[in-house]
Amino acid sequence: MVEPITYKDAGVDIDTVTGALRNVAPDVASTHNASVLTGIGSFGALFRPDFGGMGDPVLVSSTDGVGTKLMVARRAQRFDTVGADLVNHCVNDILVMGAQPLFFLDYVAAGHFGPGKLEELLSGFINACRELSLPLIGGETAEMPGLYAPEDFDLAGFIVGVVDRPHVLVPERVRAGDMLLGLASSGLHTNGYSLAQKVFFERAGLDVDARLPGLDVDLGAALLAPHRCYLNPLRDLLRDEALHGLVHITGGGFTDNIPRILPEGLDAIVDRDAWTVPPLFAELARRGPVERDEMDRTFNMGIGMIVVVAADASERVIAQLSEAGEAPVVMGHVEAGDRRVRYVGAEAL
Amino acid sequence: MVEPITYKDAGVDIDTVTGALRNVAPDVASTHNASVLTGIGSFGALFRPDFGGMGDPVLVSSTDGVGTKLMVARRAQRFDTVGADLVNHCVNDILVMGAQPLFFLDYVAAGHFGPGKLEELLSGFINACRELSLPLIGGETAEMPGLYAPEDFDLAGFIVGVVDRPHVLVPERVRAGDMLLGLASSGLHTNGYSLAQKVFFERAGLDVDARLPGLDVDLGAALLAPHRCYLNPLRDLLRDEALHGLVHITGGGFTDNIPRILPEGLDAIVDRDAWTVPPLFAELARRGPVERDEMDRTFNMGIGMIVVVAADASERVIAQLSEAGEAPVVMGHVEAGDRRVRYVGAEAL
Repeated sequence: MVEPITYKDAGVDIDTVTGALRNVAPDVASTHNASVLTGIGSFGALFRPDFGGMGDPVLVSSTDGVGTKLMVARRAQRFDTVGADLVNHCVNDILVMGAQPLFFLDYVAAGHFGPGKLEELLSGFINACRELSLPLIGGETAEMPGLYAPEDFDLAGFIVGVVDRPHVLVPERVRAGDMLLGLASSGLHTNGYSLAQKVFFERAGLDVDARLPGLDVDLGAALLAPHRCYLNPLRDLLRDEALHGLVHITGGGFTDNIPRILPEGLDAIVDRDAWTVPPLFAELARRGPVERDEMDRTFNMGIGMIVVVAADASERVIAQLSEAGEAPVVMGHVEAGDRRVRYVGAEAL
Repeated sequence: MVEPITYKDAGVDIDTVTGALRNVAPDVASTHNASVLTGIGSFGALFRPDFGGMGDPVLVSSTDGVGTKLMVARRAQRFDTVGADLVNHCVNDILVMGAQPLFFLDYVAAGHFGPGKLEELLSGFINACRELSLPLIGGETAEMPGLYAPEDFDLAGFIVGVVDRPHVLVPERVRAGDMLLGLASSGLHTNGYSLAQKVFFERAGLDVDARLPGLDVDLGAALLAPHRCYLNPLRDLLRDEALHGLVHITGGGFTDNIPRILPEGLDAIVDRDAWTVPPLFAELARRGPVERDEMDRTFNMGIGMIVVVAADASERVIAQLSEAGEAPVVMGHVEAGDRRVRYVGAEAL
């Protein structure tokens, strides 16, 4: 007589997952607001939006992954920050359309979570959502041995926000003469990690505990610095007529991202001398070596968000951003052209 | 002099991905409707909802993965169906809250896509969205060698729908005496695949080309049959007062899913003799062997959706569902109890 087989015998240990979800449930609930109508565990999450004051509400949604930054997390065995990367990346992606976020959902999959790892991963989402008063209203967690190798895992995030249609940041708002104001990034954010790891870990033979000149934390911590979210400093600007555009510097760097908000007939001029590129990027370029053009089309170079403003309002906006704790740099302007980025200034870092 | 390194040298070949996305762009666009305000490629997708006639619109969202059904797709080297599993699963999940879908986003990640594989994966999403007139408005595609093994991949889906608040299917609508009508599944849908693979491929030593008694396709095709979507047959019922609840039979089978819609003080009685369990499930139980209780808390047993209706309206609803092409089975009822499922009838399959 063959012993009967059960779901648990098939290698699916749902106790780790359900235990972790139970542990973090109060923290997840702490991100909720009056618009959230259901608790955790229903088939779908109910959210009653408040479109107060909007004549023509438009939903703005986005999904993203963390990419190969997860490999740095695995190498450093530190899992509590990558969820924040995803939340902040997604918020920035809809922010540049003019939208404020309504809610967030996460997807977490792994070959094997092991003790504490899932809680760590979820804490990244929770902390970032709490910081932004953004409800984390749903998610899916899957332990799938056989589909993922034991140490492998992946995260995806999903965000929905809203903008009143007249305030959508369409490329047509951008004009010749507009100024580009750069806001500081916290590091590589979530882009260029395949190249960065190749340079630091393979070519240079370093590991996460290496100390690099100019960095006050080790290489692992510098590379894992969470993606910055620009919602709070920019929230008050979103309905400002002088705001003509926002550019989130993600994969493709300045070179590929700035043209996404340029209308026909305009170029962006970026002055490489306008700010000091942070040491992490300079070390990357030097140790690769990676040429400046390649750097500018791969990394954010210390500028994670570009605010495009009417020239005559730039001083006021700079003052307002400074008030909000930013140190904006005038990094360029818009002029006649062909929807490209033209660089001026020195190539050297 | 060391040769400079580029993003491409780091193993990131974005040409495969951008080429595939370009190839499918017209198909993706074909899923769009007048509510979709942007094309592909903007930072966030804009959707202008039509809440026409709704006094109190509530957004309902859900995220899910395909789970280890992906391992069957990999084994069979067939990638054009699993996207449909995800779309249909997500639609069903919000449908049971009473919601109709507004839009869908996908996340696709792999170690290496290779020629045609990404297009195949995306075609599954596209075909299911087209079938449902559901706009596929965004997505993220990531090739991440080093994070995923070359043959490994994963998919996640995100859906947003809407329901007018008075029509939310809350558990409080379910009453003693209500009838349970079962609608046929197309196979295992997306649950229990770890156990099913253990039974068929490990214990029984079969492969995807095996022919099983009672199945008119091979085992791989039977296991890959896409998750059915119940939106079209149920759409007209959503505002029917006689509809008291819907249960999507996902992981946990009848045993764990039916209680999710039961209010305090009620049980569901399921009559195992009310329908014939399809051969795929019977073969699984026999070859495991898997005991009946374990089957009922793991698999859908041939019933993918349960419609809970007022007893005095059941004949009318059955006629209406039959009209829509379904063959509903009266599989049980609701009576006083403790939010559990009680089984009656024969254990044997």
